[in-house]
Amino acid sequence: MIYDSIILGAGPAGLSAAVYAKRLKLKIFVLSRDVGGQAIEAYKIDNYLGMPGVLGVELVEKFSQHVKNLGVEIKEGIKEISILPSSQNSFGVKTNSGEFETKSIIIATGKGYRHLDVLGAEKFEGKGISYCTTCDAPLFSGKIVAVVGAGDAGQDAACQLKEYASKVYLINKYDNLRGDDQRIQDEIRNSEKIELINNAKVAEVKGDKFVSSLVYQSFKNNEQKEIAIQGIFVEIGSVPNSDFLRNLVDLNEKGEIIIDHKTGATSKPGIFAAGDVTDVPEKQIIIAAGDGAKAALAAYQYLKSK
Amino acid sequence: MIYDSIILGAGPAGLSAAVYAKRLKLKIFVLSRDVGGQAIEAYKIDNYLGMPGVLGVELVEKFSQHVKNLGVEIKEGIKEISILPSSQNSFGVKTNSGEFETKSIIIATGKGYRHLDVLGAEKFEGKGISYCTTCDAPLFSGKIVAVVGAGDAGQDAACQLKEYASKVYLINKYDNLRGDDQRIQDEIRNSEKIELINNAKVAEVKGDKFVSSLVYQSFKNNEQKEIAIQGIFVEIGSVPNSDFLRNLVDLNEKGEIIIDHKTGATSKPGIFAAGDVTDVPEKQIIIAAGDGAKAALAAYQYLKSK
Repeated sequence: MIYDSIILGAGPAGLSAAVYAKRLKLKIFVLSRDVGGQAIEAYKIDNYLGMPGVLGVELVEKFSQHVKNLGVEIKEGIKEISILPSSQNSFGVKTNSGEFETKSIIIATGKGYRHLDVLGAEKFEGKGISYCTTCDAPLFSGKIVAVVGAGDAGQDAACQLKEYASKVYLINKYDNLRGDDQRIQDEIRNSEKIELINNAKVAEVKGDKFVSSLVYQSFKNNEQKEIAIQGIFVEIGSVPNSDFLRNLVDLNEKGEIIIDHKTGATSKPGIFAAGDVTDVPEKQIIIAAGDGAKAALAAYQYLKSK
Repeated sequence: MIYDSIILGAGPAGLSAAVYAKRLKLKIFVLSRDVGGQAIEAYKIDNYLGMPGVLGVELVEKFSQHVKNLGVEIKEGIKEISILPSSQNSFGVKTNSGEFETKSIIIATGKGYRHLDVLGAEKFEGKGISYCTTCDAPLFSGKIVAVVGAGDAGQDAACQLKEYASKVYLINKYDNLRGDDQRIQDEIRNSEKIELINNAKVAEVKGDKFVSSLVYQSFKNNEQKEIAIQGIFVEIGSVPNSDFLRNLVDLNEKGEIIIDHKTGATSKPGIFAAGDVTDVPEKQIIIAAGDGAKAALAAYQYLKSK
């Protein structure tokens, strides 16, 4: 059995590619760690055209249902992938859950979290340190928490957390709030629960069995301060899930796949990519979904031309 | 009053751009002929991720509601547009409904129909000849109709019409059905109501007050045949709505705006474009929506850099 296309990843880009590829009657198979990608971790999404204010989990459920209704097969739990050009016209895809052969590949593996790399951080992962606000915010009802990182994701996390926590420190390395969403910045400034700490970085995480305090250091005077907190939500950026592609397709200095944005083609014929794993400047659900469709249609044209 | 951005067009690309631009708190204004663009004419849409099987009119209503909830102002009824670079950092937009000044422009004017250019066709426009199947199909219940053009749009039209008409001729200039959607092609082949006429072109449209027959000519032997029909649905392609941009931004040989597909930038700084009016290879709703978001985010970066 040789597939027409194997789609790696089941976030918005991979699922949109699956919708298009399946309707084109390609023999496809979706391999993914989980379904939804980072979209599931967004709390409320207000910029997916046609679905104002949808919750991240709801949106992913709708995406997933759409794809399943079309009869697309998704294999979850994939953690290790390697791609081997097996012949002139096909690729081998080797995973922790079997090996597959395919004529084309659509990569939509998205991006993952950058981990907090300070004294004590590793010890408290899952013991007060969380990388998923949407998953864990309700566990911190009535507690004091800190959000590390005040970019778009950190701002979103702080707003989610103020609905549960008694107080939210937002630790920002810059001297003011940055980012594209002015509304959420106003919401942060107007909240009595959120305390913005500018020009600061985390120096240490302390605790016994669980996190109990955080030490931060000012960029202005290098002074350190310790604050009592029971939870830390880390939002310091992300890294593209592209390690398995080194030496196979061209990546940029951030590790993102360099694509032709008109078609999703990578530097390797037969391999296409879409979504947050690519060098698309803006990582947005609607953009990933659109580019997933482009990649599937381009893969279809590629297969027809063989 | 100088706008940050004027969005021309209110189809999926323009409305998605409006969602992003408004959430970025840009001073925007949407100018359009109507709301929805060609999406409103699609019957059932099954490839907009998260909304399987939505009707075109429903989808446009959801899009429109989303944008209106955010407080975006849309001016409809715009038919004539000219753009005049009025100063180094702004543009004048002159329309049949007023003149406006703006720092940037997002063009999402989509595409329009190519008209049938044969003997008798002009006389019967609106008198049996239709360019909008979704609008007019129910008017032809129990009647015999022809669809001219058997590309994706013609195939979709034939499938819609078989739900109403007693018989549907599908006139195809090729020797078999082409296009990207295998499912719809199977539906056509399996329908007892649809008769596919391959290798043929329309030669003449006849009638009295209304259309009563159509003459087609075979590409194989040049023979002409006349068939009795009461309606003709024309699906022979489209032309980008870009005439007003000649001499302002670079267009390709089809008249489509040449864009940088990473950002939606055109050849003119400050003017961005997205959707079916651009040289994006695939004209799809989800792709237009994704690229509309890209264009708004790129316009925002452009405005910040001024």
